[in-house]
Amino acid sequence: MAQFKRRLNLNVGINPGGYMQDAWKYRTGNHHDVADPEYYLRLARLARKGVFDAVFVSDMPLLRLGENSRPFQVIDPLILATAITSQVPDIGFFATVSSTFNSPFNLARRAQSIDIMSGGRLAINIVSNFVPEVAANFGKDPLPPRDIRYPRAIEFVDVLKELWASWDPRREGVVPEDQFWDSTVAHTIDHEGEYFHVRGPLNVPRGPQGHPVIAQAGTSEGGIDLAARHGEILYTNVLSRQAGHALGKKVRDRAASFGRDPSGIRIVPGLVPIIAESREEALRKHELFSGLGSEDGLIARFIQTHGIDPHGFDPDAILKAEDFVPSPDRIQALGFTLGLVELLTHEKLTAREVVRRAEGNHRLVLGTPEEIADQIIDLWADGSVDGYTVQPPRAPDDIAEFVEKVIPVLQDRGVYRRAYEEGETLRDRLGLPYPG
Amino acid sequence: MAQFKRRLNLNVGINPGGYMQDAWKYRTGNHHDVADPEYYLRLARLARKGVFDAVFVSDMPLLRLGENSRPFQVIDPLILATAITSQVPDIGFFATVSSTFNSPFNLARRAQSIDIMSGGRLAINIVSNFVPEVAANFGKDPLPPRDIRYPRAIEFVDVLKELWASWDPRREGVVPEDQFWDSTVAHTIDHEGEYFHVRGPLNVPRGPQGHPVIAQAGTSEGGIDLAARHGEILYTNVLSRQAGHALGKKVRDRAASFGRDPSGIRIVPGLVPIIAESREEALRKHELFSGLGSEDGLIARFIQTHGIDPHGFDPDAILKAEDFVPSPDRIQALGFTLGLVELLTHEKLTAREVVRRAEGNHRLVLGTPEEIADQIIDLWADGSVDGYTVQPPRAPDDIAEFVEKVIPVLQDRGVYRRAYEEGETLRDRLGLPYPG
Repeated sequence: MAQFKRRLNLNVGINPGGYMQDAWKYRTGNHHDVADPEYYLRLARLARKGVFDAVFVSDMPLLRLGENSRPFQVIDPLILATAITSQVPDIGFFATVSSTFNSPFNLARRAQSIDIMSGGRLAINIVSNFVPEVAANFGKDPLPPRDIRYPRAIEFVDVLKELWASWDPRREGVVPEDQFWDSTVAHTIDHEGEYFHVRGPLNVPRGPQGHPVIAQAGTSEGGIDLAARHGEILYTNVLSRQAGHALGKKVRDRAASFGRDPSGIRIVPGLVPIIAESREEALRKHELFSGLGSEDGLIARFIQTHGIDPHGFDPDAILKAEDFVPSPDRIQALGFTLGLVELLTHEKLTAREVVRRAEGNHRLVLGTPEEIADQIIDLWADGSVDGYTVQPPRAPDDIAEFVEKVIPVLQDRGVYRRAYEEGETLRDRLGLPYPG
Repeated sequence: MAQFKRRLNLNVGINPGGYMQDAWKYRTGNHHDVADPEYYLRLARLARKGVFDAVFVSDMPLLRLGENSRPFQVIDPLILATAITSQVPDIGFFATVSSTFNSPFNLARRAQSIDIMSGGRLAINIVSNFVPEVAANFGKDPLPPRDIRYPRAIEFVDVLKELWASWDPRREGVVPEDQFWDSTVAHTIDHEGEYFHVRGPLNVPRGPQGHPVIAQAGTSEGGIDLAARHGEILYTNVLSRQAGHALGKKVRDRAASFGRDPSGIRIVPGLVPIIAESREEALRKHELFSGLGSEDGLIARFIQTHGIDPHGFDPDAILKAEDFVPSPDRIQALGFTLGLVELLTHEKLTAREVVRRAEGNHRLVLGTPEEIADQIIDLWADGSVDGYTVQPPRAPDDIAEFVEKVIPVLQDRGVYRRAYEEGETLRDRLGLPYPG
């Protein structure tokens, strides 16, 4: 009897050097890797060996200087997407792009061009930058105010979609012999909105995926609106089963209220795996890779991050969710702190426990390859999440280790494919519908 | 005795379908080629077979509709540059980019990323758009006024160069053991100019070429300023020996007056070759490919283009240069008409002769492969030009024919290499200096 088989979606982040602050001290390679084409190709080939859906590249158009700084985003994600998909078969690519510092016409064109050149393997992760220093690289003006950030991002993606649909060769009729093409397949969009005026049509036709897959990261109310309108892959921080369920329900309900079919939404949050021979060893690696050296160090960072008075703080007392509700005017991305609030709402946890549940705001899993695999399957199996965007603490080492040790366990447990088999495009691989 | 050997620089334009209006009727392939990755790769492989320095991609972020329209620029040039250099060895890539509709930070980053991923094979051809419909794809505002077009473009490239020099790993000292890198190799640029405010540094380091080669196309006074400040390759319309000499002298003198070493400037204008078994056959092809059908048709187009009163016009009378001096407020790019004025200043020509000297404002050469080769060598040998950017009437057919028939003649005459031999980067190939 044929049975519907849910896919476990796995992406892997390929930031230069790895995800965790001090993990570079324990990695293979040196800092020149950040601008070495071979390094990125090697990571993508490892990802393909692991039969990942895609590699995921975060972005921030900014170089921080000074002590303990580290170039974290270097090669432009759109360029890296093109270079990698040109040279590595099968693998998809999530490129993070700013809706604040790109024009919709240029971005629509570049993204659709990549989708065509790659045979339909591009996803774009739409972000609206929240770091004031970024704005200084783009002119005199400060960042747009927070309250228009998401409405503007939503209209930005509206325009992208209008442009992507503005030249559709499938509409082609008989081309008269003296004409190069049937130009009625294209039309102006004449978008005149609150934030954007764009005439169109786009000078790139519909691509193999209709348009690139759209990913989105924020979980503030504005972020949920963007996800519900346009998001297909939600790269968020989900720290617990309940949080995954709650987020999925919230976004899908809101999508339905907008008249969108919610079945085209996948929750694929970040996951930081620390793989070791034993859980104890994984805990020690966590302390090393974070640069904090001990569990006390992890707790001290937690205290500092959340502005807690350290005097008399008890790391073994149950934390209260309401103590962590973010003030709406804070600069940091809201979604990150909301993940912690959500976690504390559903589980009774101490600071000592919480510091082992998240790293860089994403879900942390520690242990042997089998324990890591179990934790991945756990939230996936009951539908709390649709998969994960793995953020390896060190690159290339922890990508290689994940591929060699964790992927085979997932395959042996029957939840993960052994080869690419779902079709040619990233949409096929993710089981996402094609735009009409 | 060793002798300095001047290089004949040859690029080839790879617009979809070819350069001439009606030539597509006589080409191999169909209109779906405009978005077919294999088509572009095939052209680039042909160019490599012809040992060209680079392929050249013009651009206009605009899709015209209606009768006799034709998508002329489709895949975004930066994306195409990445895809092609990722898959075809050796060949360089000239990507046309707008200084009006890109932010300097994003463009500096994307271009330097391509230069790194391609091992130093990128040139960017900086244009400031002059077609009002383009502006409507980028907002409510019209094009910037003509008089600020070039000052703004010059400052745009100033910022690019500051950003490209803002992170230079060659400055690296000893990296302390507890630091990922030596962040003193990078510095903010704090550019506060007339048109741009950019803090920097760029989050991409110096690439294999220092920075991408900078090409420039305009020959108006503003265009000459831009060329003299920043241009390394001048892709202009040079229709005669005297015009080539005059342009070269003008740009190099002005560069010297700005304190720049003029030896790093190459004049590599457009060239439209129509190759046939005989000159007569080439004339007929010219009439066919232009869609005008006859010499009378070519003359009628000339009359119309220049707003001449056709009544009593004598196509065999000598034309006067002063009749073609453009009015400064015309919309069309000034440089194109200036080429004609220059030609008529130095040579006594009739309309019947002039229509065979230029096509799409670039130098037209007609005849057998030997005759084409002779005309290429002619202006190159005495230094009027440094080479040509070949614009094949039809693609792929005329690229293939040029490679098969004209290139071997140039090689046999000893003016053109038989294999890539000058180093790895486009700068090496063009004999251009590296930025300090």
